[in-house]
Amino acid sequence: MTIQEAAEAIKGKRVTPVDLVEQCFAAIDRWEPHVKAWVFVDREGALAEARRLTAELEAGKSRGPLHGIPLGIKDIFDVFDWPTACGSTLWANSVARHDAPIIASLRTAGAIFLGKTVTTQFASFDPPVTRNPWNLAHTPGGSSSGSAAAVSTGMCLGAIGSQTGGSLTRPASYCGIATIKPTFGLLDLDSILTLAHSMDHPGPMAHNVTDLALLLRGMGDMDMPPNYAEHANVAVSRPRFGRLRQLFEERADENVRAMMDEIAHRFENDGAAMEEVALPSGFSDIIARHRIIMAVEAAQFHESRFKRRPDDYAPRITSLLNEGLACPAPEYARTKEHQLQLIYAMDAAMRDGKVLLCPATPGPAPLADTTGDPVFNSPWSYVGLPTISIQTGYNVDGLPLAIQLVGARNHEGELFSTAAWCEKRLSTWPLVPKLPG
Amino acid sequence: MTIQEAAEAIKGKRVTPVDLVEQCFAAIDRWEPHVKAWVFVDREGALAEARRLTAELEAGKSRGPLHGIPLGIKDIFDVFDWPTACGSTLWANSVARHDAPIIASLRTAGAIFLGKTVTTQFASFDPPVTRNPWNLAHTPGGSSSGSAAAVSTGMCLGAIGSQTGGSLTRPASYCGIATIKPTFGLLDLDSILTLAHSMDHPGPMAHNVTDLALLLRGMGDMDMPPNYAEHANVAVSRPRFGRLRQLFEERADENVRAMMDEIAHRFENDGAAMEEVALPSGFSDIIARHRIIMAVEAAQFHESRFKRRPDDYAPRITSLLNEGLACPAPEYARTKEHQLQLIYAMDAAMRDGKVLLCPATPGPAPLADTTGDPVFNSPWSYVGLPTISIQTGYNVDGLPLAIQLVGARNHEGELFSTAAWCEKRLSTWPLVPKLPG
Repeated sequence: MTIQEAAEAIKGKRVTPVDLVEQCFAAIDRWEPHVKAWVFVDREGALAEARRLTAELEAGKSRGPLHGIPLGIKDIFDVFDWPTACGSTLWANSVARHDAPIIASLRTAGAIFLGKTVTTQFASFDPPVTRNPWNLAHTPGGSSSGSAAAVSTGMCLGAIGSQTGGSLTRPASYCGIATIKPTFGLLDLDSILTLAHSMDHPGPMAHNVTDLALLLRGMGDMDMPPNYAEHANVAVSRPRFGRLRQLFEERADENVRAMMDEIAHRFENDGAAMEEVALPSGFSDIIARHRIIMAVEAAQFHESRFKRRPDDYAPRITSLLNEGLACPAPEYARTKEHQLQLIYAMDAAMRDGKVLLCPATPGPAPLADTTGDPVFNSPWSYVGLPTISIQTGYNVDGLPLAIQLVGARNHEGELFSTAAWCEKRLSTWPLVPKLPG
Repeated sequence: MTIQEAAEAIKGKRVTPVDLVEQCFAAIDRWEPHVKAWVFVDREGALAEARRLTAELEAGKSRGPLHGIPLGIKDIFDVFDWPTACGSTLWANSVARHDAPIIASLRTAGAIFLGKTVTTQFASFDPPVTRNPWNLAHTPGGSSSGSAAAVSTGMCLGAIGSQTGGSLTRPASYCGIATIKPTFGLLDLDSILTLAHSMDHPGPMAHNVTDLALLLRGMGDMDMPPNYAEHANVAVSRPRFGRLRQLFEERADENVRAMMDEIAHRFENDGAAMEEVALPSGFSDIIARHRIIMAVEAAQFHESRFKRRPDDYAPRITSLLNEGLACPAPEYARTKEHQLQLIYAMDAAMRDGKVLLCPATPGPAPLADTTGDPVFNSPWSYVGLPTISIQTGYNVDGLPLAIQLVGARNHEGELFSTAAWCEKRLSTWPLVPKLPG
């Protein structure tokens, strides 16, 4: 069930928040032993909240489309009275004194938090316990691993994650769901664990574009929030795509390349304008430079704790922090200048209103000893442009694939409209994984 | 003669650009052997340009208030067909292929460039050959040393300089003239030697506030330039000052403290509102953090050349670059975050439209083995707020002093109006140094 369907069912009094929470618990009972998407589920708290919200509805009060919707929250966001462990042993019982602003907004909108979903340690690259619901030998992707796996299996209707490299788009693509990484700075970063402050993006994960729009609106400040769902429900009549090749063809596997050719062809046949877009000079340096910024800014945040508590850091985040600590400041400063130049260059390239089209990942989810390659996502985290990824129905070895759409800065509305147009033409939704055994 | 007076005399046909250039040459003949403000003076080129501009006027064409005004240009700005040596031996004959955009704008506005004025090496701290016209044993300040000394002695009517720490305000104050460091980013930085890219500010130096307004307008892009001179000519009726103490009292000498008390008292008697302003938390770290940014960004720019050509670097810039190269990137990243926080905090503090009042320098120009202390100026380079400094007539040991006014970001117009109000009450202008011997 999607969030939109659930909201309509609640409105039509065909279902209550208590029903929704209990359906999620049933899915958790089935899936969680295999998938390990949750750090913990607070069944008692969630059920109490569902009862309160059900009573509100019975009293004639509705908070809107998120009223009574059960969500999973990546374990780097502060949720009042729950620990924010971030994958650290020493923080396992660090109870948050306040909701992060994003969480507070969702709570006000009537969302029900079922529990915290697994993150890679400190939102970095060390493989988590979570497995891919489509094939338990494979990774769900990271760092928003638990959020993606939980939505994919119906253990919650939507989830909150974050991306600094490819931590929303990659797991969403690997698990067959949708996500939006909004424009950098659109959402409040307060009370969320920092990985790299100039590239950290919170974002929602869900089954389809309309659900993303409802969640994104709910995550924002409630003073005059844009009604993204209106955009998501009205597909553009004739979208204009800029197709990206270069990096995105060089690094994609052959199935992904074939998928992109076929999808581009289908979109054109359905009336879309499709032009080839050359990437600005300097784009080819992004992958290496993204790594420098992530390493340095992660070290900026972790340095003193990392030196006192090296045992609390897994191998890949340890390497990242050591890289950041060893980086000479002028090299970082040059990289920040490169980042700013690329931001300007991409903004100039996006001025005509087209939406860029490229694959979400180079291939399907790899085995679980890695979280996969964020190479197609890091560039958009680096320049802060909004992206939406949606699954395409092109499964390879039983594992989902997805396309990625890139919009102009702060033009989430137009991006939603184009994504809605695409979604209608990728008609295999919903993909549902099969319970193993 | 001020630029405004010269422009009126040209308009009234009482003087020609050729006359002005020849008057400057006469001042150069008298002063330059003592003061050493110029890297070179291109008498032939300047005279040819003056003749062309005089002919234009005779043909009835006027380019505006800078038509025929002789200027000095700090030797870090590219001026077509002249070397940009930046104090480097190896760049002594590096001829610029284009005007920097600021220079091109001034040229279009009719300004005449007499030559390049002495800068400290690479716009840093190593004492230059230039001496203070008020006392040749003392420094003119730096790094815009030659520009300040040349304007002060009438060797040109105005000059272009730049500031990354206190390189406009400090020499202007030490030499008894006025300057504006505009809002960071207001003027184009292209084809100007970088010291620290996030704190470099070009700016004009002249005898009074109106002249600064005319020059600042001429330095900008000519599409819809703001008419600063209108602001400078209309003093506000009742200015509101925020008086800064803390750092600015702790580090000022007793003469400067007494001057500030007397000036504040006089301004209040003349109807100004005067409130005490507390600096935001974190302000006290600015001096140390400014040094980190300057060192790292200077190293970012100079690194490869510095490693190949260490002999071309004087002792103080060498120390600065070594500091920058040794700085760990996370420390710089933390400092950039501090800078951004202070920018936000100061913008919030300035929202009510007041102008901050503080001394321009802790005391008069020291002896020539240093360029003096930029401690009162670096904070404004760090946060990018616009400042105007004007001399006060309070000479100490025959050396000038100045006040510094700090305005809200991008509110140069209001700052000019307040500065014009102040200037009227500091009535000793013009201070003119006496030729030695």
